[in-house]
Amino acid sequence: MQKDPSAEHPFDAFRALLAQMPSASMESVEAVRARDIKLTKPPGALGRLEEIVEWLAAWQGRPEPKLDRPTVVVFAANHGVVAQGVSPYPPSVTAQMLTNFSAGGAAVNQICAVNGAGLKVFELALNMPTKDITEAPAMESRECAATIAYGMEAIAGGADLLALGEMGIGNTTVAAAIYHVLYGGEAEDWVGRGTGVDDEGLKRKADAVRRAVALHKDFLDDPFELLRRLGGREIAAMAGAILAARMERTPVLLDGYVVCAAAAVLHALDPASLDHCLAGHVSAEGAHAKVLEKLGKKPLLDLGMRLGEGSGAALAIGLVKAALACHQDMATFDSAGVDNKDA
Amino acid sequence: MQKDPSAEHPFDAFRALLAQMPSASMESVEAVRARDIKLTKPPGALGRLEEIVEWLAAWQGRPEPKLDRPTVVVFAANHGVVAQGVSPYPPSVTAQMLTNFSAGGAAVNQICAVNGAGLKVFELALNMPTKDITEAPAMESRECAATIAYGMEAIAGGADLLALGEMGIGNTTVAAAIYHVLYGGEAEDWVGRGTGVDDEGLKRKADAVRRAVALHKDFLDDPFELLRRLGGREIAAMAGAILAARMERTPVLLDGYVVCAAAAVLHALDPASLDHCLAGHVSAEGAHAKVLEKLGKKPLLDLGMRLGEGSGAALAIGLVKAALACHQDMATFDSAGVDNKDA
Repeated sequence: MQKDPSAEHPFDAFRALLAQMPSASMESVEAVRARDIKLTKPPGALGRLEEIVEWLAAWQGRPEPKLDRPTVVVFAANHGVVAQGVSPYPPSVTAQMLTNFSAGGAAVNQICAVNGAGLKVFELALNMPTKDITEAPAMESRECAATIAYGMEAIAGGADLLALGEMGIGNTTVAAAIYHVLYGGEAEDWVGRGTGVDDEGLKRKADAVRRAVALHKDFLDDPFELLRRLGGREIAAMAGAILAARMERTPVLLDGYVVCAAAAVLHALDPASLDHCLAGHVSAEGAHAKVLEKLGKKPLLDLGMRLGEGSGAALAIGLVKAALACHQDMATFDSAGVDNKDA
Repeated sequence: MQKDPSAEHPFDAFRALLAQMPSASMESVEAVRARDIKLTKPPGALGRLEEIVEWLAAWQGRPEPKLDRPTVVVFAANHGVVAQGVSPYPPSVTAQMLTNFSAGGAAVNQICAVNGAGLKVFELALNMPTKDITEAPAMESRECAATIAYGMEAIAGGADLLALGEMGIGNTTVAAAIYHVLYGGEAEDWVGRGTGVDDEGLKRKADAVRRAVALHKDFLDDPFELLRRLGGREIAAMAGAILAARMERTPVLLDGYVVCAAAAVLHALDPASLDHCLAGHVSAEGAHAKVLEKLGKKPLLDLGMRLGEGSGAALAIGLVKAALACHQDMATFDSAGVDNKDA
């Protein structure tokens, strides 16, 4: 039997996984609904908190969902495109912030502490930034595939809820390039101020996105190719993490603008690949609200945050905890002796 | 010196308080801003979390705000207007739900537990419902004033953040009547399904609101008179609680549709009386979003909740905790050795 050369392409293993993703457990959702209707509240009165519990049940595949190990996973990387003057912070900040995460000094550390969530941070070859996307593909194919695989491995180990985050000076620029390719429009429609570039910086950013997309435009039909040419290592790793979480039946809370670039690549491959994901928040960065619309996700929080680090998703863990606590621990009409509707 | 008879009106003591409300501590806000700018994040990147900390500082009057005793206070009352068939639940449910609160079985109990908040529930003469507002004023003046005073007393005791909630079968109807008077339009513009009335019930509810407002219309110029004629005991008590919290420098998280009726009465007396309040959430009930616009409040959460009990405000306590934790415990650029912007 002749070997198909395409089977050796580094991305094929991921394509195979996308073809065999587990689906929602509707039995578990039904079990949640059967309990919910008995709880001492009018049906539907907890709004999206009820939807959250159904989502946990559907994707954990458990009629009684668990939340013993909510975990925030942050991937960090550096980007050659910073040479184009797209960020007001030097790329040294990426590594310095990792030290800050380790020492417990970043925003996401405090939010995890408040919400009782674990935090894991993965560093992706910070000393070797990806290539400048205005000049070359960010990554080689095998490098990109290895990074996706690394992201898949990184989330192994039994989190029952995964919140994704990232750190990487320059990464809102590569995310904007991905959105510009996937969703059209002008470069300006997708860039934002990131960590706070001034007007001139914003122009440089849009210009970098425009030039990068023009350079690679003939090779972007395959979302994996888009990812390796215009993405970054943290974006590749997060795409892997989202996919692995699906295979392991771990629901995922997406964070903001950059995390959703990883989600958007998967969505372009198969919209169903994000069915186990909720949007933790809508960021104030760039066109994140438009991106969430494209992904069909309604954010849980809208607080004008634009920090990254998984901070918005980590904050949303508190809502998930409250939702599950209501579902698990509320009394029923019978047990509490409360008269039900129209009794 | 001749005694002014108007000075003996039961509401005058509250009017006097409204004339001497403390204002925001701008020194404390400045202290918060001076620390915030040093924290390891781009300025403004935590969005409304930064605003929340400034608000705590402003109204606690502390440059280093505290959150040792966040407390949810729920007031419960019964309403004569239930005779008009405005709720699908019998009024017996109000007392039964209080038992459920005491036993820890309601939604708000679980949300308080998750957010480490205290919960106090006050029962307001449940066996003596207020009069049916379609037939008579809900309360006598002295009764209403005593209930406001009760609400003021109830929140004494050192909460550093107060979240207000309520329970009372029929109370979305009286809240709608208050909004209809204050904000005009048609009765239909302000009523919602409450705990879940059907279409016929919704018509009865709008009709009851219309008839109540018509009956009392010549006596509603004074917001206190509006409160005693069309309100209810939990609404009067919450108005007192909001006012007392201001005097004690305790920031307040408003809950949903019914809590905001108490806030709206104060707002009609003096819009500045709500400056120490944030809207914890926007409810799916009735026209709560429109009410928040009238009050000039942007909600922290929008999750389609419509339960009352203070559940939305209690949920928002988690956001306040996370906001303060970030402010208090994040590293500074100097302490973490992170290069600052344009460094």
